[in-house]
Amino acid sequence: MIVGTEWLVEAVGCNAVGLRDEARLRQLFDRVINDLGLKAIDSVWHKFPGEGGVTGMVALTESHLACHTYPEHGTATFNLYCCQSRPEWDWESNLRNALGAQNITVTRFERGYVDQNFETQNQRSAAGGEA
Amino acid sequence: MIVGTEWLVEAVGCNAVGLRDEARLRQLFDRVINDLGLKAIDSVWHKFPGEGGVTGMVALTESHLACHTYPEHGTATFNLYCCQSRPEWDWESNLRNALGAQNITVTRFERGYVDQNFETQNQRSAAGGEA
Repeated sequence: MIVGTEWLVEAVGCNAVGLRDEARLRQLFDRVINDLGLKAIDSVWHKFPGEGGVTGMVALTESHLACHTYPEHGTATFNLYCCQSRPEWDWESNLRNALGAQNITVTRFERGYVDQNFETQNQRSAAGGEA
Repeated sequence: MIVGTEWLVEAVGCNAVGLRDEARLRQLFDRVINDLGLKAIDSVWHKFPGEGGVTGMVALTESHLACHTYPEHGTATFNLYCCQSRPEWDWESNLRNALGAQNITVTRFERGYVDQNFETQNQRSAAGGEA
């Protein structure tokens, strides 16, 4: 029984300033939520001190949205879990615009199904980027 | 660059009462956190009304722990994301004991790595269970 779909998103080659900018990440979350017609229940945001990154987690009536950023590695990861059908969101252009991400990978993972079914889609920018 | 490991856990054949019991799920989270020496920053818990399930999300200094339960399908899903190395947790016996889960699948997913590397481990109880 598939109870939902989770998108696991890896963004590398991001600019470190963006990865430390909680307001920018909150805006990005708002865009996902609005674009996909999701409904937030409550959230937790945490900025790690100094040069550290940001953790954001939003509980949705449709499941959850989360991010963790690693400015020291130019990397951000996102989880979007929807227990109701939703279209694909354009992580590629949104993360390139918001964070300067050079290389983005989106993996769909069907939740609740015991023989796992993965679908990984490499979305590489025109500029390419490290593997 | 791998920035962390996420375990995606699917538990099916659970008893519906346990899947509606926020206190039991909070205890389960406490056990994960204590056993693995994790540190909680903040959390969101939500019980959906009536016969509905529970959503729990805990932001950790080491990333996050989340669950969503679906009593109508006897299913729970868990995410444990650690940006620091941690041993495998015994989801199999813990979920069997706490929720009566009959069939548990644990998938390790390395985060931040653009050419994804999956490792799925089917942990089936002696009783087997639906697929």
